Amino acid sequence: MIDVAKRAGVGLGTVSRVVNGGAGVRDETASRVRAAIDALGFQRNEVARALRPGKKSSSLALVLGDLTNPFFATIAKSSLEVAGQVGFAVVLGSVDEDPEGEKRAIQELIGRQVAGLMIVPDQGDHSFLASAGVPVVFVDRPAHGIDADIVMVDNEGGGRLAAEHLLQQGHERIAILLAPSYYTTGRRLRGYRRAYRSAGLDVDESLVVQLSEGNAEAAEKATRELMHRPDPPTAFFASTNFLTEGVLRALRGVDAEPAVVGFDDFRLADMLPTPVTVVASDIAELGRTAARLLLDRTSGIDTRPPQRIVLPCALIQRGSGERPPSAGKRIKAEPAGE
Amino acid sequence: MIDVAKRAGVGLGTVSRVVNGGAGVRDETASRVRAAIDALGFQRNEVARALRPGKKSSSLALVLGDLTNPFFATIAKSSLEVAGQVGFAVVLGSVDEDPEGEKRAIQELIGRQVAGLMIVPDQGDHSFLASAGVPVVFVDRPAHGIDADIVMVDNEGGGRLAAEHLLQQGHERIAILLAPSYYTTGRRLRGYRRAYRSAGLDVDESLVVQLSEGNAEAAEKATRELMHRPDPPTAFFASTNFLTEGVLRALRGVDAEPAVVGFDDFRLADMLPTPVTVVASDIAELGRTAARLLLDRTSGIDTRPPQRIVLPCALIQRGSGERPPSAGKRIKAEPAGE
Repeated sequence: MIDVAKRAGVGLGTVSRVVNGGAGVRDETASRVRAAIDALGFQRNEVARALRPGKKSSSLALVLGDLTNPFFATIAKSSLEVAGQVGFAVVLGSVDEDPEGEKRAIQELIGRQVAGLMIVPDQGDHSFLASAGVPVVFVDRPAHGIDADIVMVDNEGGGRLAAEHLLQQGHERIAILLAPSYYTTGRRLRGYRRAYRSAGLDVDESLVVQLSEGNAEAAEKATRELMHRPDPPTAFFASTNFLTEGVLRALRGVDAEPAVVGFDDFRLADMLPTPVTVVASDIAELGRTAARLLLDRTSGIDTRPPQRIVLPCALIQRGSGERPPSAGKRIKAEPAGE
Repeated sequence: MIDVAKRAGVGLGTVSRVVNGGAGVRDETASRVRAAIDALGFQRNEVARALRPGKKSSSLALVLGDLTNPFFATIAKSSLEVAGQVGFAVVLGSVDEDPEGEKRAIQELIGRQVAGLMIVPDQGDHSFLASAGVPVVFVDRPAHGIDADIVMVDNEGGGRLAAEHLLQQGHERIAILLAPSYYTTGRRLRGYRRAYRSAGLDVDESLVVQLSEGNAEAAEKATRELMHRPDPPTAFFASTNFLTEGVLRALRGVDAEPAVVGFDDFRLADMLPTPVTVVASDIAELGRTAARLLLDRTSGIDTRPPQRIVLPCALIQRGSGERPPSAGKRIKAEPAGE
């Protein structure tokens, strides 16, 4: 339905008016809408049903983490764009690693009679959402206790890409830093393990570091500790953008700078002294896909069982991930891979 | 009123119940609220008036630019926090440099019966807001055609700080890059001119560069052009965070790297090959101050005439702004000011 409105360049309300007789719509606009409906192969009555009266709310709720994390800001931006194109407003709830706060925020938003919910879920049980009475789409992570749509990236594939790349450079001691046990980082770890298994190598479990907080400071501290061991790692896989920043901060001034691969791209990654290699997916597309799916659920046009949509990850080689294990013999200031 | 709720650690609803008799509120909580009211010097009936029934909406609208710009993301995050503390939701409208789109978004949000509007205004006439029927607080920039609260940073003072700092290092040819003629960059330019005047120097108008777009690409292109002149500038003042990024990109590989001062701090500024000197203000405080003011207007407790609140700027010296004009004689790779 969204597709009809977008293709015709009008709001959902206009599509509705055209389908219901066209009162108050300019002829030129009406024919554009009809052409869009035909081009997309919809039945006129299917469109009418999706836009049946009585569906008054034209707000979506979006609940996600810290907006100053570019990952969440990008999801917010892209889903707002998609919603705005069809005249939907977005009510925002931002809760950072606080399952109880998240539940309160969601219940608050449901009480505001939104037409649907897009949620980047925290840990914990989300079965209370089953009674929300509106469609729910989860973004980035599935939730427990409810069977709903989920749009995510290929975390396991991305984790495997990162570890395989480092193994191919000859690294065997690759530290992996994990944010508090989110689904995503668990899957990234699984990919890392699979890469080791495929290479016929055992994982040194002391290099699998579960952080108690998901910020740069925690990663910086853990990296320092790893580097002070008698047998430090020769490479780091940082499983989120903030963790990558922390690893890089800790490695400033280290003579034998290990290789680094981050998960998720970030602004200025290519401008750092050694440009940063990352595994990345299209986060804006993640937000757009989720918003489109939610709008189609909300309009009633999409009645399929809960979907699981997985977007691919790709490796972006920039230098930090291409340092060989022998980097320790080189001087710090020499940039690698430029 | 917000202050009472925050001090007592409860929602506005609880404050209201206490003031109206305390039904359904635990004794311990009620005394905490009463203590907060006393401590803050409010009259009980003043509190009751502010919380009079009939004020049903507990949503604020926030309209701002591109959320992937950390400046806007920080304002969104901090104002959401303040609103959330007292049980208000925030409906978000994000419009990037599109006055007509902004007007549509604002009217849409007013139609959703929000209790108040926080707007980072685009250019153009905002007199249509006079009939909005709800309080409006402008953030970062004043708007034309309406007399309303404005919370902003000291743009002129910040611009002067940046230019004075470069002049003190001996620079006389300081290029200033300006985003499309926003109020803010105009004020920053005024500060730059005042610094020149105080130093008894004339501004070379060919170094005042008005960009047609406010992104990094436009700044990168303009910087390249300036550096290809027979008499290139020895220093750059980039008047926004995105412009700073563009200047830095253009200067990579330049043998005689000019000094650079940016306006607004940004993530990883201290991690770049030469850490970046910036003039910065507390953007989170900008968002918090605006949200608090709007909530107090909404509750009716703040009946002062429109206020103009200006937050200070400070210089953060990190290296790029401390390069002397003679930097041209040094080799590129040598970091300055570390």
